[in-house]
Amino acid sequence: MSDPHAISSATKPPAAIGPDERARRAAHAFDRLPKHLGSIVLFDDEYIQYFTGFLFHPTERPIALVITPDGQRTLFVPELEREHAGEAADAEHVEAYPEYPGETHPSELLLAYLRRGGLVGDGVGVDHDGYPPLMGHVPRPLSAQLPIERISPHIDWQMAHKSEAELALIRESARWGNRAHELLQRYTAVGEREDEVSRRASMDATREMVEALGEGYRPRNRHVQGAVALYRGQIGPNSALPHAVTMNATFKEGDTLVTGAAADVWGYVSELERTMILGTPSSDQKRYFAHMLALQDLAFDSMRPGTAAGTVDRVLRSYIEDHQLTRFWRHHVGHSLGQRSHESPFLDIGDASPLEPGMVFSVEPGLYVPGLGGFRHSDTIVVTDDGIERLTVYPRDLESLTLEA
Amino acid sequence: MSDPHAISSATKPPAAIGPDERARRAAHAFDRLPKHLGSIVLFDDEYIQYFTGFLFHPTERPIALVITPDGQRTLFVPELEREHAGEAADAEHVEAYPEYPGETHPSELLLAYLRRGGLVGDGVGVDHDGYPPLMGHVPRPLSAQLPIERISPHIDWQMAHKSEAELALIRESARWGNRAHELLQRYTAVGEREDEVSRRASMDATREMVEALGEGYRPRNRHVQGAVALYRGQIGPNSALPHAVTMNATFKEGDTLVTGAAADVWGYVSELERTMILGTPSSDQKRYFAHMLALQDLAFDSMRPGTAAGTVDRVLRSYIEDHQLTRFWRHHVGHSLGQRSHESPFLDIGDASPLEPGMVFSVEPGLYVPGLGGFRHSDTIVVTDDGIERLTVYPRDLESLTLEA
Repeated sequence: MSDPHAISSATKPPAAIGPDERARRAAHAFDRLPKHLGSIVLFDDEYIQYFTGFLFHPTERPIALVITPDGQRTLFVPELEREHAGEAADAEHVEAYPEYPGETHPSELLLAYLRRGGLVGDGVGVDHDGYPPLMGHVPRPLSAQLPIERISPHIDWQMAHKSEAELALIRESARWGNRAHELLQRYTAVGEREDEVSRRASMDATREMVEALGEGYRPRNRHVQGAVALYRGQIGPNSALPHAVTMNATFKEGDTLVTGAAADVWGYVSELERTMILGTPSSDQKRYFAHMLALQDLAFDSMRPGTAAGTVDRVLRSYIEDHQLTRFWRHHVGHSLGQRSHESPFLDIGDASPLEPGMVFSVEPGLYVPGLGGFRHSDTIVVTDDGIERLTVYPRDLESLTLEA
Repeated sequence: MSDPHAISSATKPPAAIGPDERARRAAHAFDRLPKHLGSIVLFDDEYIQYFTGFLFHPTERPIALVITPDGQRTLFVPELEREHAGEAADAEHVEAYPEYPGETHPSELLLAYLRRGGLVGDGVGVDHDGYPPLMGHVPRPLSAQLPIERISPHIDWQMAHKSEAELALIRESARWGNRAHELLQRYTAVGEREDEVSRRASMDATREMVEALGEGYRPRNRHVQGAVALYRGQIGPNSALPHAVTMNATFKEGDTLVTGAAADVWGYVSELERTMILGTPSSDQKRYFAHMLALQDLAFDSMRPGTAAGTVDRVLRSYIEDHQLTRFWRHHVGHSLGQRSHESPFLDIGDASPLEPGMVFSVEPGLYVPGLGGFRHSDTIVVTDDGIERLTVYPRDLESLTLEA
């Protein structure tokens, strides 16, 4: 395994996304949209972060971003967020409403703002039809007041094409996910508890990362905090549940373990997952591990620019059928990621999007064997001009991932 | 401050919400709904947890809960969640679709399921108009296929009335939020870093809580993990931003600090927040602290069954105006909470809901003084038959909350 000093003494850490790049994003938001839309109104916090850098916890109090066809951004926030938005958001304007529910529903105030500014056009592009019913918010559909067009697929398409600055952050994230995973593997042992091992690995890796990224480092992701490595309950037979939620288990000899690691580097994440065996692998564990590795290799080999995302999934499904593994299949090969831990396009039989340079995917075919465990590695790759580059460099072979019991 | 042993040796910890109570919730979901609805279709993960106990991280793969007028529940999940849902959810049926995006959009499969079961009636009650555009999910509005009625306010109303079992969990949560806060206060000192102090307090309190709640304890809340106490960046002048997001600051003498503490006890939370001063309080700090305390007392005194939620806010706004504090006002007095950290009704001028026994509120009037800091305590109370009971018992006075510098 790599020397930790090799990580902290690496070249200068990458810079956060700056105001210029965010302004360019807003300026290009209309590129693929119908010309009749007067503005875009976004409620999703991830979209708002993408265009403004503003990070917030969605609550019952609506927050909305209005983008005009010439790329001007207005952040519509409750009074209690006005100062924070003014300081932290890249937006040309901040418009505040008193409170929710307040004497006038904020939806009416947003609508009045759009009408006053001549931003309704022949319709408005939206992600949600009005602010969603979070935490007791009473929704007021925008479509009752004006024509709407659902445009989230276009925003997702824009987010799928990563800039050099974004790729540098994802690359750095992969290095710290790697480091957290290294510690997770080191601390895992028979009799230890899942949550303690995970907390210790995550805390130690985060401390190193914060030091390496420098005094200016700030958490910028709502879902990943610092550098983390964890098990999500995928321990022993429970590892056969692909998305188990943590259950605070104690490690036992013979356990099949499925891990997850990531790191927030200025809001961008990566994904690293490994199957590990605690103790000498059984012949069943060896067999499914080998199939899983073969599947991942097959996926890597079939990914290049121009290939349809769905083709990768189709190739792997053939392998699975040919080897009578269908009953262990649970999900497609992978997903895009970047600012969000899952994004589109998907390496899924139903997704015809061509792979393009600058797209970033998780590659994570899995086999889930009831009673025995789950077998899944996940690596983060970027599509290059002539193939792919793997950004997560953690060892993939069984020997490296077998822990002494 | 209380002796930690008094906490861990308390009476038997409360039981988690069981299948019977969840079945009753589903049986009563239609109580206030129009009779023509053929079923309820819910996509919000918090609602799904409320009715089934199923806990999941929403992604691009739709998950939906269908409730029939006779209280039968079908959980509609991707194949990779089928086993997990079958084991972990209180639902009479689990219906799985292969994958998202898949060869057929899951929305079509859900619609086919509703039609096959005769569950469309003259319309369907929904929270969202189809699965929302999360993480690259391409939305398909349900309203394009059948009449919908937005019913989330009715579900919120149901959730606002807590059972004895729910109150016991919130009460227990308050005890552990208290303990985490006690440690946070103890570990906070000039020169220490926010994230380290918060992690240490949270980890230590969580360890104690897990031990006290016993081997069976499982994390059941997606937003609060274990027992936590933190600052959310509200340190020094930054504490004037009511919802600042953590910035990893170093504590300095003279800082006004605004804390937050909570604990997940079988999915239920509480809210405890305190204003603390690091070093000898200045006369300004003393003055605003005293006003804040007077406001909170005024709120406590004005809450009883039958009083409109908005009245409490109105009473406090009068005090604020009378004392020329309006420029420091940012938000209403409080919100309900329970399984979710914010719920309706709100202690807000625009909310006419009468307070009723069994409702649980945060009471947290705040004053935010630019350049100096924020002043806010938050306590969790339950409305009783003749007034309120405070569930968070942490000291509120300035002397107890002044830290040696």
